[in-house]
Amino acid sequence: MTTQAAPQVRDSAFDRLYSEVQQFYARHMQLLDAGAADAWGATFTADGSFDVPTLPEPVHGRENLVAMMRRTAAELAAAGDQRRHWHGMLDVQPQPDGTVLVRCYALVFSTLEGGEPRLHRTCVCTDVLVREEGGLRVRSRRVTRDDLR
Amino acid sequence: MTTQAAPQVRDSAFDRLYSEVQQFYARHMQLLDAGAADAWGATFTADGSFDVPTLPEPVHGRENLVAMMRRTAAELAAAGDQRRHWHGMLDVQPQPDGTVLVRCYALVFSTLEGGEPRLHRTCVCTDVLVREEGGLRVRSRRVTRDDLR
Amino acid sequence: MTTQAAPQVRDSAFDRLYSEVQQFYARHMQLLDAGAADAWGATFTADGSFDVPTLPEPVHGRENLVAMMRRTAAELAAAGDQRRHWHGMLDVQPQPDGTVLVRCYALVFSTLEGGEPRLHRTCVCTDVLVREEGGLRVRSRRVTRDDLR
Repeated sequence: MTTQAAPQVRDSAFDRLYSEVQQFYARHMQLLDAGAADAWGATFTADGSFDVPTLPEPVHGRENLVAMMRRTAAELAAAGDQRRHWHGMLDVQPQPDGTVLVRCYALVFSTLEGGEPRLHRTCVCTDVLVREEGGLRVRSRRVTRDDLR
Repeated sequence: MTTQAAPQVRDSAFDRLYSEVQQFYARHMQLLDAGAADAWGATFTADGSFDVPTLPEPVHGRENLVAMMRRTAAELAAAGDQRRHWHGMLDVQPQPDGTVLVRCYALVFSTLEGGEPRLHRTCVCTDVLVREEGGLRVRSRRVTRDDLR
Repeated sequence: MTTQAAPQVRDSAFDRLYSEVQQFYARHMQLLDAGAADAWGATFTADGSFDVPTLPEPVHGRENLVAMMRRTAAELAAAGDQRRHWHGMLDVQPQPDGTVLVRCYALVFSTLEGGEPRLHRTCVCTDVLVREEGGLRVRSRRVTRDDLR
């Protein structure tokens, strides 16, 4: 991350964007946790990429993303594991080329049926969001886990 | 939940609403955790309802909501248990009739005096908010717990 | 805290402010957790103060704040402890004198290299923010821990 204190942006375009990014992630993560693979896949660009340390290599392309999520959702459902993904502390940085860089924190909670809720992961997520057909989509995502360095 | 990717709303009315809902929940939950039963009750409509699996049946009406909260607050105070309610990942959906549907995630943390903080619950909260006297109020709330299915 | 339900503010200045405060805290906390002491110090006023129960007495002035943070960051790095600070449930209250009072909840997560993530603290944070050179800065911060009363 840049460690200089950036000038704070106050124009109303930034406010609109900030709320829009929050709403985007809310829906995006609720789709993920609901196992709605196709609708979740539609929140990535067609060539969207996902790079996370639990995968042997980055996943590229919406079809591969949907397939990956479908597998994971099936495994979690079989295990009775309800995951909840929280994004927070969003540092939203509009770029000159119209894309939006977001660096934020992510929490993953896990609850087994009849069990105690558990903090599963704390991560940092860096996304490049782009606008397509009026809405935001993830073009690339890189996740780091705080336990793996 | 609807599992289709909704078109993302960008008009400034939505931005205003999104911030307003966040501010509303912040105050609402801080009142709850402070045990301020009357002020918390005033954030529901007079006929507000609350449906949560820990209650034998849904609670209807502000007076009953306040009475329920007063009992719970007294029990927690006697146990030295400081709860903290977090709402997050707000999917805010303005409805044609002027009400606001919110589906969000909820975390409940619990800390005993001198003890370690503990993740107590992860939930999903679905609210219908309405505007009364210029501000938002909860007309109905339905909470599901991730451990009970 | 005031336990009366405040009238909810709807004007667009409030929306802008709410997003700005969220963005400010995101950057502020990411700097803290990255150990970027000077950049973090620049998010306080020159005479900024920090009052938290883990310190023997409140810290005053940016230089002392930076020194304190540098010490803490070095200790955490030596221990392999990655902290993550989350602010949430922001009750943002613009004051007549132009300052911004924020009362919010704070979570601190801790993860050792190769270890499980852990909820370390739940707190309440009360800040007075002021505007300097176009951006927000913390003039005073008071933190209470839920385990210490």
